[in-house]
Amino acid sequence: MTLTITWDACAALDAADTLAHCRTRFNLPADTIYLDGNSLGAMPAHVPARMKQALEHEWAHGLIRSWNDADWYPAPQRTGDKIAKLIGAGQGEVIVADSTSVNLFKVLVAATRMQPGRRVILAERTNFPTDVYIASSVAEMTGCELRCVDPDDVLGAIDETVAIVSLTHVNYKTGKRYDMEAVTRRAHEVGALIVWDLCHTAGAMPVHLNACGADFAVGCGYKYLNGGPGAPAFVFVASRHLAAIRQPLTGWHGHAKPFEFTHDYAPHPAIDRMLTGTAPQLGVIALESALEVFDGVDLDTLRAKSVALGNLFITLADQELVGLGCGLASPRDADQRGSQVSLTHEAGYAIMQALIARNVIGDFRAPDILRFGFAPLYVRYVDIWDTIAALKDIIATCAWNAPEFLARKSVT
Amino acid sequence: MTLTITWDACAALDAADTLAHCRTRFNLPADTIYLDGNSLGAMPAHVPARMKQALEHEWAHGLIRSWNDADWYPAPQRTGDKIAKLIGAGQGEVIVADSTSVNLFKVLVAATRMQPGRRVILAERTNFPTDVYIASSVAEMTGCELRCVDPDDVLGAIDETVAIVSLTHVNYKTGKRYDMEAVTRRAHEVGALIVWDLCHTAGAMPVHLNACGADFAVGCGYKYLNGGPGAPAFVFVASRHLAAIRQPLTGWHGHAKPFEFTHDYAPHPAIDRMLTGTAPQLGVIALESALEVFDGVDLDTLRAKSVALGNLFITLADQELVGLGCGLASPRDADQRGSQVSLTHEAGYAIMQALIARNVIGDFRAPDILRFGFAPLYVRYVDIWDTIAALKDIIATCAWNAPEFLARKSVT
Repeated sequence: MTLTITWDACAALDAADTLAHCRTRFNLPADTIYLDGNSLGAMPAHVPARMKQALEHEWAHGLIRSWNDADWYPAPQRTGDKIAKLIGAGQGEVIVADSTSVNLFKVLVAATRMQPGRRVILAERTNFPTDVYIASSVAEMTGCELRCVDPDDVLGAIDETVAIVSLTHVNYKTGKRYDMEAVTRRAHEVGALIVWDLCHTAGAMPVHLNACGADFAVGCGYKYLNGGPGAPAFVFVASRHLAAIRQPLTGWHGHAKPFEFTHDYAPHPAIDRMLTGTAPQLGVIALESALEVFDGVDLDTLRAKSVALGNLFITLADQELVGLGCGLASPRDADQRGSQVSLTHEAGYAIMQALIARNVIGDFRAPDILRFGFAPLYVRYVDIWDTIAALKDIIATCAWNAPEFLARKSVT
Repeated sequence: MTLTITWDACAALDAADTLAHCRTRFNLPADTIYLDGNSLGAMPAHVPARMKQALEHEWAHGLIRSWNDADWYPAPQRTGDKIAKLIGAGQGEVIVADSTSVNLFKVLVAATRMQPGRRVILAERTNFPTDVYIASSVAEMTGCELRCVDPDDVLGAIDETVAIVSLTHVNYKTGKRYDMEAVTRRAHEVGALIVWDLCHTAGAMPVHLNACGADFAVGCGYKYLNGGPGAPAFVFVASRHLAAIRQPLTGWHGHAKPFEFTHDYAPHPAIDRMLTGTAPQLGVIALESALEVFDGVDLDTLRAKSVALGNLFITLADQELVGLGCGLASPRDADQRGSQVSLTHEAGYAIMQALIARNVIGDFRAPDILRFGFAPLYVRYVDIWDTIAALKDIIATCAWNAPEFLARKSVT
């Protein structure tokens, strides 16, 4: 296939890419183009060896002693501190625990308790569903009102009635990104607290939680952090709030002295108070190990590559997919975009199945979104070229219009 | 050392043990006696191979496709069904998710919503702390009263004011066991619902949740179920309640159609509604694999061995530790006991450290409890003999009275 930008030109970009060597830190199938790291990150190549040690030495041989002797016990704190460096948080402000949904519940309830005079949780209609579902449950349990507005109306809806603004930094479908600094400033101007969901941000670009003055954040371990399927999530609490907040999932690991087994709950003075039950330790170990792929990686360089990959994708889509029924669902302006580009097509589901059958993996989001995530540590410029070429061929030849691609199966 | 019951007599019991072959299903250090499977179960020998496959084939090669192609997505339901067989539950009544503490929160809130006319959650003072901490938070959030009574007063305290009775079947410190059938019957007589915590029960003895008519149960995957450190927990909901209950941690995986990404929450019609976020998949895979050690194991035979191990331990303790300051914290009557025996000694902490230094692993629970758990699949009768002999020597010679054993370190 011939495209206006040549494959060789993309290969030249890869040759000049100062992050190109990071791809060897991952175990990726040689025959596959993987643009779904925003759903499940690729596996860092060294993780299996770490897990083998955790299983065969620490669990099998160390047994219960490994909670102390293998430093299992402080792993959620230690791993949180590593994530803190990726999101502009301080040491002791981030801990790994549970799932994003569970952590969001903790944070939202804790935040409502800090705002006794206000009753509105402001969210937005196009947010990832779990965020809205959890906020709705929190509103019901705390006597608050959940107010959902369209994304463009968020800034204007932040007024003195709002207790908490709960937003996802980068939208899961469109990749559209909020201006964290501006929204946080507006929330604080009216006395509201802000909760940022960083699921589609952390590990793909620098975040500056403390520079923006953010109050709380949550995020996922299994997307751009590459922690493995269902990796534990993280939660950030600005240090100024730590001493005062009371979260509702008061399990023993959040206690000041869990191993004194006292009858009354007393929250841990530090970020540990965000813990609930025993850490999902195998997952924590995998995530902690996975984070080593960020060693020595400059986050601004990471972001520059992410922008370049996205811009190349859009440029090629503009040039090659014209007249084929594709729309652009993501912002053209990289300043408003995360690390993904989403296209629309009315046959999106079948097109994505046909693409996956050619070992080009993105994902589909109803009703018509073809989603392509660019994990800058392992995605190459030639991958973008190959993806657009495959898309052009599949759509132009109607290769997607086949029973095996049209039949819906369960999707994740 | 000479004991009144000989080591050879114990070895003869092992030779006659129809479950003795199950020990080879575990990877246990040859030089260690492990009586702490009620804190962290031993590692089933086949788990590392399963995890290697999950990591190197399913994650690294299958990537996002494995949620469908490797049947990751239904693993919490599938694993729950396997656990159901161990606890007297039906297929579709148990699912694996989150931690015990988080699941208890879901269940207690769901239960209070079924009892709008009642405001008392009845718990007991000596329960494992996390259960009381969570119940206290639920009471605060739902406007209920948490009423804690002494264990002997539980039956008498179940009256018409009680909405929910929340108990742990086997006490973590003493091993004392409630009569599940009698307590459940009493709760239902007065119109209360019952929640059983099976952390120290599941996998150690048969449980008959449905035969007793239990309403809800939760339990831990990392003790007698051997799922690995921080393994995901399970939650049981009697099928008669499934259609009606509303749990508060309404994450997307509990939705009727999670991959339609709708704005409004609609609970899944089945046990899946107890899910919240993405499953901690590496942990689920390890737990599912670990449960294979129960293949072909008759639970009444398992219980008979557990009773025999406990009785042997008590008999030897009575005979050998007399006059050494030890007390028995567990019931003598096996019908009132779980699968552990706890001793008391004022120097309990140091004694346990000295014991562990000899590779005999139990654990210590403040203020004076030496706790010994008997996982019938891998504990031998000679292990009991060796443990009592070591205890006798350590206490009689004051070997525990050494700086390295007296110094407190963090304990789990």
